Amino acid sequence: MIDKLIEKIQKTGAPIVAGLDPMLSYVPEQVQKKAFAQYGETLQGAAEAIWQFNREIVDQIWDLIPAVKPQIAMYEQFGVEGLIAYKKTVDYCKDKGLVVIGDVKRGDIGSTSAAYAVGHLGHVQVGSKVYAPFDEDFATVNPYLGSDGVKPFLEVCKEEKKGLFILVKTSNPSSGEFQDRLIDGKPLYELVGEKVAQWGEEHMGSRYSYIGAVVGATYPEMGKALRKIMPRTWILVPGYGAQGGQGKDLVHFFDQDGLGAIVNSSRGIIAAYKQEKYAKFGPEHFGEASRAAVEDMIQDIRLALG
Amino acid sequence: MIDKLIEKIQKTGAPIVAGLDPMLSYVPEQVQKKAFAQYGETLQGAAEAIWQFNREIVDQIWDLIPAVKPQIAMYEQFGVEGLIAYKKTVDYCKDKGLVVIGDVKRGDIGSTSAAYAVGHLGHVQVGSKVYAPFDEDFATVNPYLGSDGVKPFLEVCKEEKKGLFILVKTSNPSSGEFQDRLIDGKPLYELVGEKVAQWGEEHMGSRYSYIGAVVGATYPEMGKALRKIMPRTWILVPGYGAQGGQGKDLVHFFDQDGLGAIVNSSRGIIAAYKQEKYAKFGPEHFGEASRAAVEDMIQDIRLALG
Repeated sequence: MIDKLIEKIQKTGAPIVAGLDPMLSYVPEQVQKKAFAQYGETLQGAAEAIWQFNREIVDQIWDLIPAVKPQIAMYEQFGVEGLIAYKKTVDYCKDKGLVVIGDVKRGDIGSTSAAYAVGHLGHVQVGSKVYAPFDEDFATVNPYLGSDGVKPFLEVCKEEKKGLFILVKTSNPSSGEFQDRLIDGKPLYELVGEKVAQWGEEHMGSRYSYIGAVVGATYPEMGKALRKIMPRTWILVPGYGAQGGQGKDLVHFFDQDGLGAIVNSSRGIIAAYKQEKYAKFGPEHFGEASRAAVEDMIQDIRLALG
Repeated sequence: MIDKLIEKIQKTGAPIVAGLDPMLSYVPEQVQKKAFAQYGETLQGAAEAIWQFNREIVDQIWDLIPAVKPQIAMYEQFGVEGLIAYKKTVDYCKDKGLVVIGDVKRGDIGSTSAAYAVGHLGHVQVGSKVYAPFDEDFATVNPYLGSDGVKPFLEVCKEEKKGLFILVKTSNPSSGEFQDRLIDGKPLYELVGEKVAQWGEEHMGSRYSYIGAVVGATYPEMGKALRKIMPRTWILVPGYGAQGGQGKDLVHFFDQDGLGAIVNSSRGIIAAYKQEKYAKFGPEHFGEASRAAVEDMIQDIRLALG
């Protein structure tokens, strides 16, 4: 799957992933109204609204980008109905040929991680049949529990030719509280980075490993250090745009060929129509605003990578 | 909710939580067969099987214990259908008066943690209505992202009178890989423990905080140290039974009044009928085997606490 991701990045010239993280407040009124007219102001109505919102955006941007990253929390907040919309979104994006990164940040003790791995990336046995329940292409994983919490994910990825992005240095303001603490003179995120590189070595695609890392755009200097520590690790870079990361901050996450990283933007793309810059589209044409935002982001990153 | 939990622990004399983590392989054949006859060997069939399995066990043990802890991964592995069974289990246990700890181990950047918090412990707004999607009483949370990943959960708990158990030192063999690393001479889990104690101080029940911690029974010495660092933090202790923790290992997790901790057993209770000790019940009477296992566990812990 990492090779497919790289191929699609090269084809589109866009090392970009669109974060499909729909807050209900991002969904224009006409879309909400239509969904509520059909299902009422219910969890099902909310789920329908975010699904229709996603679909329009995906229809507008799918040809420009290699991948999407739905954040499952934004669906899970609407309970089971929301998760049905999550699954519809995953399937729809895969049908469009997009690589789907499930931003699930799961991680637990071994037997439990195995259940998550099977549910999101693998197949589960039911009697004599097997099913692929959520079936994303990549998943994000939290490393706090150590190797035996990660290994079941590695095994499923190997079997299914899928991949992971493991949290190393997250984009949020307080990520340093634990991640930056020094252990034998090295910050924890570097130790985690070393571990990710090590796990990755046994799980290689043709050039990069299919075991990737998450490193926030908001910490460019740390990205630079981690790029060196994890030379064959693809880096998923959140925090661009709304969280404050800019094109110029991204240079060091990439290798000399402009590969090695994929940059996520969520709000900046899906709620573009709310920005002054794209206000001319209006809420009626929110999907076109998202397309314009993607085009601008591609330009920004191309300029930065030179 | 922490006060309700304590009250129920005192009433039952059982500082015990039953982990409802149903692998399909734990579900006796007759239960699987019946579910598959109704829904086929499908995800829905699997979900029905684990739900019927849970219900029988809960019917057998609810009066002996204060709380249950369904592990959401075991449901999520069957996709949306599995999560419907999770929700049914949560609701059924609450109807029985049990405190429900959703073992979800969520945690993300602020806005995303807010969505998880709302979905699991709070209320979500849909137009002019509000809904409580999963509505567990407590949730487990992963601290790797630091304060701003935890705060939205704290806020929702305060508002909803619910609670958390934050991962401090997990029960699995490789938990030390990152959690035990020394930072200024102190292991990371102690730093996390200090932080949990600090968050907890602002979120107090009458005697203990409703912001608790997870510390594995498999690390009794660390439990002893953490009990001191977090004097008003309730400790959820996994790892008893199948993972190797024993009654005598648990003493130091409790305070002098036998309060301050609640011990989880999952496989040891729900798959008791598979153990030689309870084989006499047979798969037909798996629920009664679970009841006997709970009674034995209560006895084991009472003896240990003296």
